[in-house]
This record gives sequence, structure tokens and C-alpha cells, in this order.
Amino acid sequence: MDFNNTPRSAELLQQLRLFMQENLYPFEQELVAYHEQHNLSADWKTWSEHPKLAELKQKAKAAGLWNLFLPDSKLGQGLSTIEYAPLAEEMGKVYNAAEVFNCNAPDTGNMEVLFHFGSDEQKKQWLEPMLAGTIKSVFCMTEPDVASSDATNIETSIEPDGDEIVINGTKWWTTGLGHPHAKIAIVMGKTKGTEERHQQHSMVLVPLETAGVTIKRMLPTFGAFDAPAGHGEVSFENVRVPKANLILKFGAGFAIAQGRLGPGRIHHCMRCIGAAERALELMIKRGNERVAFGKPLNKLGGNAERIADARIGIDQARLLTHYAAWKIDAVGVKHSMTEISAIKVVAPQVLQQVTDMAMQMHGGVGLSTDFPLSSFFLQARALRLADGPDEVHKGVISKIEIGKHLH
Amino acid sequence: MDFNNTPRSAELLQQLRLFMQENLYPFEQELVAYHEQHNLSADWKTWSEHPKLAELKQKAKAAGLWNLFLPDSKLGQGLSTIEYAPLAEEMGKVYNAAEVFNCNAPDTGNMEVLFHFGSDEQKKQWLEPMLAGTIKSVFCMTEPDVASSDATNIETSIEPDGDEIVINGTKWWTTGLGHPHAKIAIVMGKTKGTEERHQQHSMVLVPLETAGVTIKRMLPTFGAFDAPAGHGEVSFENVRVPKANLILKFGAGFAIAQGRLGPGRIHHCMRCIGAAERALELMIKRGNERVAFGKPLNKLGGNAERIADARIGIDQARLLTHYAAWKIDAVGVKHSMTEISAIKVVAPQVLQQVTDMAMQMHGGVGLSTDFPLSSFFLQARALRLADGPDEVHKGVISKIEIGKHLH
Amino acid sequence: MDFNNTPRSAELLQQLRLFMQENLYPFEQELVAYHEQHNLSADWKTWSEHPKLAELKQKAKAAGLWNLFLPDSKLGQGLSTIEYAPLAEEMGKVYNAAEVFNCNAPDTGNMEVLFHFGSDEQKKQWLEPMLAGTIKSVFCMTEPDVASSDATNIETSIEPDGDEIVINGTKWWTTGLGHPHAKIAIVMGKTKGTEERHQQHSMVLVPLETAGVTIKRMLPTFGAFDAPAGHGEVSFENVRVPKANLILKFGAGFAIAQGRLGPGRIHHCMRCIGAAERALELMIKRGNERVAFGKPLNKLGGNAERIADARIGIDQARLLTHYAAWKIDAVGVKHSMTEISAIKVVAPQVLQQVTDMAMQMHGGVGLSTDFPLSSFFLQARALRLADGPDEVHKGVISKIEIGKHLH
Amino acid sequence: MDFNNTPRSAELLQQLRLFMQENLYPFEQELVAYHEQHNLSADWKTWSEHPKLAELKQKAKAAGLWNLFLPDSKLGQGLSTIEYAPLAEEMGKVYNAAEVFNCNAPDTGNMEVLFHFGSDEQKKQWLEPMLAGTIKSVFCMTEPDVASSDATNIETSIEPDGDEIVINGTKWWTTGLGHPHAKIAIVMGKTKGTEERHQQHSMVLVPLETAGVTIKRMLPTFGAFDAPAGHGEVSFENVRVPKANLILKFGAGFAIAQGRLGPGRIHHCMRCIGAAERALELMIKRGNERVAFGKPLNKLGGNAERIADARIGIDQARLLTHYAAWKIDAVGVKHSMTEISAIKVVAPQVLQQVTDMAMQMHGGVGLSTDFPLSSFFLQARALRLADGPDEVHKGVISKIEIGKHLH
Repeated sequence: MDFNNTPRSAELLQQLRLFMQENLYPFEQELVAYHEQHNLSADWKTWSEHPKLAELKQKAKAAGLWNLFLPDSKLGQGLSTIEYAPLAEEMGKVYNAAEVFNCNAPDTGNMEVLFHFGSDEQKKQWLEPMLAGTIKSVFCMTEPDVASSDATNIETSIEPDGDEIVINGTKWWTTGLGHPHAKIAIVMGKTKGTEERHQQHSMVLVPLETAGVTIKRMLPTFGAFDAPAGHGEVSFENVRVPKANLILKFGAGFAIAQGRLGPGRIHHCMRCIGAAERALELMIKRGNERVAFGKPLNKLGGNAERIADARIGIDQARLLTHYAAWKIDAVGVKHSMTEISAIKVVAPQVLQQVTDMAMQMHGGVGLSTDFPLSSFFLQARALRLADGPDEVHKGVISKIEIGKHLH
Repeated sequence: MDFNNTPRSAELLQQLRLFMQENLYPFEQELVAYHEQHNLSADWKTWSEHPKLAELKQKAKAAGLWNLFLPDSKLGQGLSTIEYAPLAEEMGKVYNAAEVFNCNAPDTGNMEVLFHFGSDEQKKQWLEPMLAGTIKSVFCMTEPDVASSDATNIETSIEPDGDEIVINGTKWWTTGLGHPHAKIAIVMGKTKGTEERHQQHSMVLVPLETAGVTIKRMLPTFGAFDAPAGHGEVSFENVRVPKANLILKFGAGFAIAQGRLGPGRIHHCMRCIGAAERALELMIKRGNERVAFGKPLNKLGGNAERIADARIGIDQARLLTHYAAWKIDAVGVKHSMTEISAIKVVAPQVLQQVTDMAMQMHGGVGLSTDFPLSSFFLQARALRLADGPDEVHKGVISKIEIGKHLH
Repeated sequence: MDFNNTPRSAELLQQLRLFMQENLYPFEQELVAYHEQHNLSADWKTWSEHPKLAELKQKAKAAGLWNLFLPDSKLGQGLSTIEYAPLAEEMGKVYNAAEVFNCNAPDTGNMEVLFHFGSDEQKKQWLEPMLAGTIKSVFCMTEPDVASSDATNIETSIEPDGDEIVINGTKWWTTGLGHPHAKIAIVMGKTKGTEERHQQHSMVLVPLETAGVTIKRMLPTFGAFDAPAGHGEVSFENVRVPKANLILKFGAGFAIAQGRLGPGRIHHCMRCIGAAERALELMIKRGNERVAFGKPLNKLGGNAERIADARIGIDQARLLTHYAAWKIDAVGVKHSMTEISAIKVVAPQVLQQVTDMAMQMHGGVGLSTDFPLSSFFLQARALRLADGPDEVHKGVISKIEIGKHLH
Repeated sequence: MDFNNTPRSAELLQQLRLFMQENLYPFEQELVAYHEQHNLSADWKTWSEHPKLAELKQKAKAAGLWNLFLPDSKLGQGLSTIEYAPLAEEMGKVYNAAEVFNCNAPDTGNMEVLFHFGSDEQKKQWLEPMLAGTIKSVFCMTEPDVASSDATNIETSIEPDGDEIVINGTKWWTTGLGHPHAKIAIVMGKTKGTEERHQQHSMVLVPLETAGVTIKRMLPTFGAFDAPAGHGEVSFENVRVPKANLILKFGAGFAIAQGRLGPGRIHHCMRCIGAAERALELMIKRGNERVAFGKPLNKLGGNAERIADARIGIDQARLLTHYAAWKIDAVGVKHSMTEISAIKVVAPQVLQQVTDMAMQMHGGVGLSTDFPLSSFFLQARALRLADGPDEVHKGVISKIEIGKHLH
């Protein structure tokens, strides 16, 4: 066994660190300030991106730190999942840094869908501008009326009608829907015709400006709107798109989703680990600096033990995530279900726990935007539902384990 | 032993439930909508109270559901701590309902300070309008430059100068500072003259419009501002008030604080328990209604066990809180330190855990303001720091326990 | 509310403490030594009781500290469940102390069965010597071939045959079966004739010397045999007893069991709390005395926080147990199912956790019989299965909670 | 990164599995029975080894499954730590299986001490028969009168006197002391002469038959004696051995201990992981077979989730242990302190948790010796103290972490 990463990945990591040190850490509080000034309103039409972001993206692209997530060596950097892992972790240390490297969700997952399953025309029309970072995309899966954690519950209808496809239904928790650059949606829905539960769904590309597409509202999470991306509720009323917008074929929705969510879940987890490392660093520094009852906080009560717990938890989460990434590369997503579900449970929980401790060490200010802790904490908490709640992932794992001992 | 409450408390509880059922539950989402429309900005000067609140307060006052927290039978309803407990719990079921009954922090604590330690003049000038609900108050304790969980660290200076008192320093996490009705601050600070660590601090009344008082900003918690109350940062630069504004005497700050925080901590805990009951109810209902993988969520995985865990946790937290309340009534705050610290640790944690589970059961919408869960969750999380972090309270308890076995 | 206990209970508690201080604490290590010398073998026929026990029982009886558990004022001391609670807790502080006061399981539960449901003849023949402490009894419930946590699974047959009853089946985990004084078993089994799942079972008195009763072995728990009581496996092969040995009537087994287990579960929990208090005391004392890395252990790492956690956990468990006891007295076992199940989950877990911490604080010797910690720990661990596993009790609670919100 | 093991290790693993399948699993209950018949007494002089063990050892030696732990390719199999990991894990699945392969503690650690630091004469006299499995050894570290978790507290004196060394002191928790084959002790003690806290201790070889060595008693853990090895208390009164028995030199005790305990701790952890895998397998099988309330236990309540938790916990523990092993091989014990301490905390806890769950799933019989669960559970519990309590290891980790951010 060899736990070292490849030279290529190690080299990119060093470049990424340097880039972030020079460009993103100094920008962090400026972004918070911009957000507080421009993007707190519930009215998503008023939201805007910090003007400097475009410039930073150009800089990252020029430095070769662009589309690192994509395993293709022409369109991306040709990195395997395990090679990308430490890079995603590094990005996770600054909230939303992945955006600057065109490595942010849900665009990455959507690009992967088109890369793997899109037609040439779909690639030209949508994948190329997404890879260039000029447009943004959303993924419409969750629905308000059904428990969408069981994706077979999804009811939005996607039906052929001559040369067109007609879409009817309502989606919510569509991340990125409020972004000024959001142009295209991948919509998951049900198509009549087959009885097999996992072959009833289809995915279709729907430009957001299509007639019948109505953004109804942005949903706050924990009282805030996560602008300028946002999480939206959107209705599709007799929305019509050309048949060429169908991805792969009718009934392929589940197969595509499975492929899409595997690496995407890993990316989230990697970023969680980076965020947790940052939180631990901030926690230790604060605990060294602040004094109460005559001692630095790190020497009071159980604080030092909590630091040890954090170190252990983070290291374990990283190893499990690396292992899952390695296994995806070695045997594919389909044979890595236990590992993918396991890290999806573990990584956000570790981040939630570590930031929880770190906020306690900071006192009140730990809850504010003066530090990134509270946004990491909410990111972790939300992620325990996004891409499948913990309970569903544990269900996947236990089903596999129990099955090993059934005859 | 008798675990029944008094007839007086039971009767008020029934009235309170009816009032809330008729007036507050129907108003809950309207308040959220008002808040999203008017109060999301970081600029606290734009914040406003929902116009219907004043009307609701009049209604509550008329119904005799007013100042229930105050043990005095003329100014309040003459309830003991344990009699007030179930009422505070009930209020906790609707976010900020306590406001309607003039039972909200930090006003309750400030009223108790003036009730117990204020001069007649101070009572007339400040306590009376607070009891009438016409003005609001803040409590300035925490400081940005020191670990304020150790209150002896507090550095703001409060010094006599002839017939006046001069205040210099900076405070933050001053809750309610952004409220349009906030008029008066109780400021804790240090006065030269004594060596004994717990007799160096004083409390003084400072009208917010006094020259030299500058509200610098409101601090977001988890990205939102908790408007129209807010949590503010405020500086005092050579602020001068008459000596009559001193509470009790120089050096009495700690003694006053101790008395102030005891019942106040209990009130918070009672409300936490009510909020947790509401969250559990919402969780069970959702789990009965929603179906995944062919079964109601309550029959899936560990969901039913989590419901049992929640019931156990809530019942234990309530019993401990009632016990602490009973002990305060029986032997006083000073001899109930273990119990007060214990519930301050337990109640917010139970609320955090129960709402965490309840949000998982709700899926994405559990994080939004369509349900009160996410605001309960953040209330719990913030409370684990407010009025002393968990770690400090555990320190109090362990010190007492260890002391029992030292000779 | 009043959290004080009755004068009668308080007075008995004081007497009990004195008695234990004088007679049981000094005897504790002597009993351990006797056990190590005489009672470690797997061959239960060699087991014996410490000769001094009989004398101690006489002393306790003479002091009026006898059959305290029995609510009858002639046969016992006429204490309510809540009045007995602090006495049982006190007994729990010394391993097996309850034995000395004729308050030990399973005899107490068996006496309660006969007290409530036995015929006059059964009372005369069996209850009287049990109350006198001259014989011991066992309760045969669990079976090796079925998941006995669902008691409807029980398969031992109890069938009428003329004037006799015939019993066939195998039982195990029959506590006390190895004791030299064990004379009588209450056997739970199935009787043909009714379809209703909870009316198919009967209870019958079977003297252990009856033909066809064979003790097959004693079962070790964690490698030791808990002698001289032991937990046995016993087969009944065409065992015949007179019909007069039937308790109440055929089909009444479940109703009797329910009544039997309610208070019995509480008694176990009370003793757990006492044991946890003792463990905490030992933990603190050790932590004050021993020095590592230049400090007493109580000042190292998270040890002080753990002491606080223990205090909080114990106080919460006691309150919940007292509340359950009070509720049983007020509204009966049938309407206290949530509370009884809740403490059955909580109390052993608290004891397991506190002893776990206490053993860590003691180092290796904490695992030995030089201290009572390891036996408390195993008592707690075993109790999480005995009288219903945690999981079944949580199932009871969640079913009630979920039912509140079903229409 | 490559998470595959080497072909050499994989091949040995297959052979080991086969050997255990054929020889050890069928022997498991026979060993339990032998133990119950011969080895329960507190009188260690009566203890004996199962006669078949010698034969099994010969068989293992013949199969090349011997001294696998030793990195030397002549004396052992020349495996690196990471190569040995899966083999140790496999051995862990059967209680005490490591013994059969001459890979059991404390002999392995003692052999490593002599291999790395012993003189040629010491190797010839003691290492050779230990490697041949003809004698057994003990390691005398812990002392009754001081908190030995801080090894600088150790007080036994080891002083030169002419050509001899004189030893005075008392040790306990000396594992293996009761074994009929135990011949030699490595004793850690203090030697006058230096002030530096970590250079005051020495290690010396003391044959157990030396005059002045007195075995005072065996200490029970959780009421049982772990015979025929046992954990003993032993006094050294003016014990004299030749100077040639000194290991390395005076003052080298700490350096030797550090080197000794690193790999030894890992071996324990590997075995824990194997034991946890076995427990999980037993848990799932039992949960599939047993039915309650109309369903297999695996479909009841939170049981399936617990299976997922166990899988996640075990996989994380294994990865961390492999990582620590790899790091020891790559950079040495000294630079792997965080990782070694981390697995020492994690692996026993995972084993304790998984066996705890597995026992619950089994009901009462899970606590008996009919299944290996209860012995795994106690092994885990004891290991949380042996080789340094969890709290000390967390202290090591937090010190390193905090140090990273101190200037």
C-alpha cells in the first residue's frame, strides 16, 4: 500500500495553495461584505455576483487551475478521482472557492452528465459554455409533494409529444436557480411506458427562459438565501423543448443520476474535510490566544481532548474519502456504493462536529461572519440532507451488509 | 413527592394555550413573511416591528397574560419560578411568542435587576415603561477583546467623576440593540478600587441616546440578523451619566449578575423544552404523512427509535428544569448552582438534537422558514454560548462535585 | 410541585444508610474474597452463600429494614413506589446489598406476583417463606429457541391434564437458579385455546425438585457465573404439578407479567442510580488522589467535564425514575408505559457510562474486584438486555408517541 | 495512492484464513469448555494450557505461519508493519488465535525489544526460545502506588551494585504472569543519576525464578482471571541479576519503551478490527435468523442503521490503522505519534461499540461464552486502559496539534 498521492496531483496542490493564499484568503471578508450589502434580500432578481469573481476566474483559468474535477485530459486536467481529492479538499477551506476554479456544484455534476451521456449537439450547446464558465446550470430533482429521498417517488411528467417533449411539475431546492448566470436546467421526471421502478424516469435539458418555466420563490435555509446562487422553487407548466434535449433516452434517468451523484458526493465530502481542517486550525489558534480563568482556553476543561477528537475524526474522514475515490477509479461507482454512502454520512458529520466545537471555542463571534465557521456549519448541516439524507445512505449500506449474509 | 403543578399555574397554562392557539399559531407564517420583506438587511436602521405586534400585546395584557415571569404579585402575576415554568415552556413553542407576553429576554432579566436592585427613581423611570411594554432594554456584558465567558475579564471602565459616572469601552453581542424601541442599556464594567476579583465590577444604566454611545454594527448569526432585535456592537466613548444611574453600588456588578442570570437561564431552558416538544410533534406528523420506499417515514430505519430518544430527552430535560426551578424557589439561586448550570447545558442540547432529527425527517423544507425547525435549531445552537458556554457551566458543576471530596 | 420525599421514607433512608455504613461497606471486600475462594467454578452444585449473610439478614429484619419493596403495610412496610425509590437507590451503592434486606430480584417480583395474584394457599405455601427469607425463587421466562424479547414467541407448553398441569419446554437466563436456597419457579408458558396473542400464556408455580425439572448448566456472563445465584438453563420434561399451582387462571400470563415487571424495572433502575453515585464518588476521590504529569487527574484533560457529565446524567436519571415511580403510584403501571420504558433505557446506560469513566480514572485496578466498578459496569450492561432490551423499550415509547398523532 | 496490499501479504492472508478455518474455528468452543473446567480458579498455580495448543503451534510453524509479526526475514517472515496488518486482523477474529502463531502480546513486544536492543547473549538466551515458542515472557511496567499512565511516575528501583543489578519494587497488571510457561520478565524501573525525566529509567531482564521475585496474586478483570495467562501482582525484594541482564544501558528505558509500544499498539488495533468484523458478521446473521414482532430483527427499529454504523466504523478504523502502519514503515515510530495514538483510541472503541450492538442483537446469549462477543467486548474495554488510557493518547495528539500553531 502507498498512501502518497501522484506527483501530478501534488504539484497542482502546491499551485492551488499558492493561488488561494494570494487571491482567495485575502478576498474572503470582502466577499462577505459584498454579500451583506447586496445579497440579503429575499428578492432574487436583485442578486448579483461580486464583480471581482470574473477576474479571479480568468486568473485561475490562466494558471491551469480550471475544471480540475473533469477526468478528461482535453476538457479538464485528466485527473482521476483520487488525484482530484486533495485539490477539492484544499478548495473547501475557503467558502465557495470551488466556484473560482469552475469546480462548484451543481455545475460539476451537470457537466459530468453531459460529458458522459450528452449528444454532440448537447455538448456543443451547453457543455462548452459551462466548461468555459460563461453560463451556469441547475439540477431539478427534489419535489415538494413527495419524499424525494426515494427518487422513485418523483412525479414531474416528461412525455414525448411529436418532435417535442412536454414537462409538467414542480421542483424545489433547485440550487443555483437564483444566480444571474443560470441558463439551463437538467430536469428529472417520470415518463409513462415501463413498469420497472428504476426505468421510469428521464432527464431532459430545459433552458430556463422556456415558456412555462416559472421561478416561484427562493427558499431560505436557516433564515438566509445563500445568494447569489439560492435554492429555488420552480414550476413547469406545459413546458415544451425539442426531443434533442432528451439526455441519452427515455427511462435512463436513474442510471444517469447514479453516475452523476457518485463523484459529486465525493467532491462535497472532500470540501467538507478541507473546511474541517480550516475550522480546527482556527479553533486551535483561538484557544491559544484567548485567556479565561488564568489560562489559555486550550488548557481549560475538555478543550484539548476535543482538539484530539477533531484531528482523529478529520483524519478518518479523509482516509475513507480517499479510499472511496480510489475504489471508484479502480472498480467504478456501481461497486463502490458502500464507500460512497459511507463518506456521504461521515464527512458532513465530522464537519458539523468540528465547526460546532470551533464555534464554542470562539464564543459569540464564532457564530458571525467574521469567521467562516458558521457558514461551514450550515454547509455541513444542509449537506446531511442534500444528495440523499444520512438515513437513506445508511439504508444503502445496511442493505448491502445484510445481503452478504442472506442465502 | 408531588409532580403536579399548582392550580394557579395550571389555569394560566390553559388560558395561555388558548390565546396562542387563537392568536399566535395563525400569525406565525405572517411574521416570517413580514420579516423576509422588511427585515433582512444588515442596515438595522431600516428594521421595523410587525405592526400587529402592538395589538397582540394589548390583547395579552387584557387577558392577564402579562409579565408572568415576575414573582411580584402587584407588578407581575406573583408566580414562583416553578409555577412559571410550564408557561414559559408553552411560549417556547412559537418562536418569539414570549415577546407578546412581555416575557422575552433580555428585557425580563433587566426588569428583574431593577425590581430587585433598582432605586425607586430607577424603577419609576425605567422599570415602569418596561413593565408596560412601551420601551425595550439591552444588557451590555460581552466584549470583543477578551474571553467574556470569564466575566472577570471584562474591561469596560465605569468610573465616578464628581456627580457623574464615565463609561469607556466596547461591547458586542448586545441583544436587542437594533430594535426600534430599544432605549436603555444596563452596562457591566470595571471600577477601580478593590482587589477582590468579584467586587471590581459595577452596573450602570445608560440611555442609548447618550452622547458617546455609538452602535457600530449588527452581528449576523449564521448569516442572518435576527431583526428587528439584532445583536449589536456598541462603543462607549467618554459616556457620562448621572451617579443616580448606578445600580446598587460600585462593585456590586457580580452579585447583581448572578441574581439576574439564574432565573433568566431557566426561562431560556423552559422555552427550549417547549420548542423541542413542538419539533417532536412536527417530526412525528411528517413521518406519518410522508412515504418513501413503500412505508411512512416513521417506519423506516432508526426513525422510530429517534422519536423515542427525543421523548426521553425532552422529559428528562423538563424534569431537570422543573427541579432547578423548584430548588431556586426553595433555597435560592446561590444554592442551586449545579442545577442551574446543568439545565443550561442540557436544555439547548436537547433542543439542538431534537430539531436536528426533525429537520432530517422533513427533508430540505425542514431547513426553510416554512417550518419553525431551523429557527429553533439556531436558537439552541446560539444558546449554547449565550449566558455562558456549555464548557463554563460544566466547569461550575465539576468544581462543586470535586470540592465535595476535597478536605 | 414538591420534590421532597415523605418523612417516613426519609427516616428509613437514614436508618438504611447507618445500617449499610456499619454492616455492609465493611463486609464488601470480605464477600469478594469469599466468592473468589468458593464460588468461581462452573459447577453450580459447589456454590455456597457467605455464612455471615444469614446473620446480616436477621439484623436487618430486626431493624425493620425488611421487605421494604412491598407496598403492603402488614407484610412489608407499606411504602409507595416513590417512597421506596431512595431506599432502593441506597441499596444499589453496594453490590447485592438488596439481598440483605430481602429486596433483591427476582424474589421481589415473584413475591409481588403472589401478593397480587396468588391464591391464599399459594401465599401460605410460597409467599410466606419468601417474605421470611428462608427460601428463594426463580422466574422462568426467556427461552433459547426464540427471540424472547417478544414474549408472544414463548413456546414452553403449559397444558391442563385432569387435576394436573403438564409443562414441557426449555428456559434459560433463569436468574438465581444455582442458589442453594432456590426452591420454587414461576414458569411462563403457552396454553392452547385462545387466538388473542396476549391471552395465550399462563404462569404456574413449579417446585424445583419436581420430577422432570433438570438444571442443565449455568450460563456465564462476561466469563463469570454470578454465583451463588447464577443464571441457569433448565428443561421441563413432562413436569406435572397440581392445578392449584396455576396462578390466577389460564391465559393470564401476560397480564401478570406486565404487573410484575413494572415496579421490578423501577427497582433495578433505582439501584443503578445508587451504583452510579457510588462510582462517581470513587471516580472523584481517585482523581483527587492520583497525580500524573504534575497534576491530580481531576485537573487533566476532559476529566473534570466528565465529572460534570456524570452528575448531570445521574440527576436526570434519578428525576425520571422518581417521576415514573410517582406516576405508577398516581395512575398505575398501565398508564405509565412510556415512563417505565424510558427509565429502563436511561438508568442502565447512565450507570454503564459513569462506571466506564470511573474505570478509566482508576486505571487497571478499576477493572478488578478491588473496587465495585467493574461489577457495576457488568450489572448495567446485562440489565440493558434483562427485562427487555433497550430496543424493545424504545419501540414501546415510539409506538405511543406516534400513536398520539395518528387519526 | 494504492490501497491494495502486497502479493506476499495477500498470499499469507489466504493461508492464514485456511489454517484458521480448519484448525481454530472448530477449536474455539472446545477451548472455552477447557477453560471453564480447569481455569476459573483464582489460584493461578492450578492453571494449565489446553494440551492441544502445543500441537496447533507445531502445525502453524510447519505451515510458515509463525512469528509473522517480526520484520526480520530470517527470524520472522520479513513483513513490514503494513504487510502484517491484515494478518493480525485475521487472527483477531478468534479470541487468542495469535497465540497459535506465536504472535501474541506481551511476547511479541518483548521479542521486539530483544531483537532491536538485546545483546547477542540476551538474544541467544531469551529471544531464541521465545521465537521457538518454548517459553513465555512478561513485561513489568505498571505499579500499584502511582498513576503509571504517566510512566515517569514509575518508582521501582533498578540500581547497579558491582557486577550486579538490584531491583526493588512492586508491579501489577503484569500480563501472562500466571502462565505455566512464563519464565522471564522485562522490568522497567528507575535508576539514580540523571535529572532528565525521560532518561531516568532502565529495563532489565529478570528470570521469574530469581530469589526475591514473589507473585502475590492474580488480578481479576471483570470478575474473571483470563487464565492461563492472567494479570499478576509481583514484588521484587532485593532481587539481584547480573549486569549482563541490563537492556542497552542505564537510562534507556524510555527510548526502548517507545519503540516497543508503537508496533505493539498497532497489533492490538489490528486484532480489534478483526474481532469487530467477526462481531458484525455474527450480529447480522443473528438478526437475519431471529424473528420478533413478526419480522427478522434486522428489519426492526434501528438495527439496520446500527449495522451501517458498524460497517462505517470498522472501515474507518481499518483505514486509520493501515495508514498508521504505513507511516511507521515510511517515517518511523517517532514521527507517527499522532497516528499511533489515534488508532489506540479508535480501534478499541469501535470494537467495544460493535460488540455492544452485537450483544444486544443476540439477547442474553450474547453475554455468554456460547459466542465470542462478550470476550471481545471485555478485550476492548480493557485495551482502553492497557498500553496507555484513551485520555493519555488524546493528550499526545492534542499536544502535537496545539504545538503546530504555537510560535
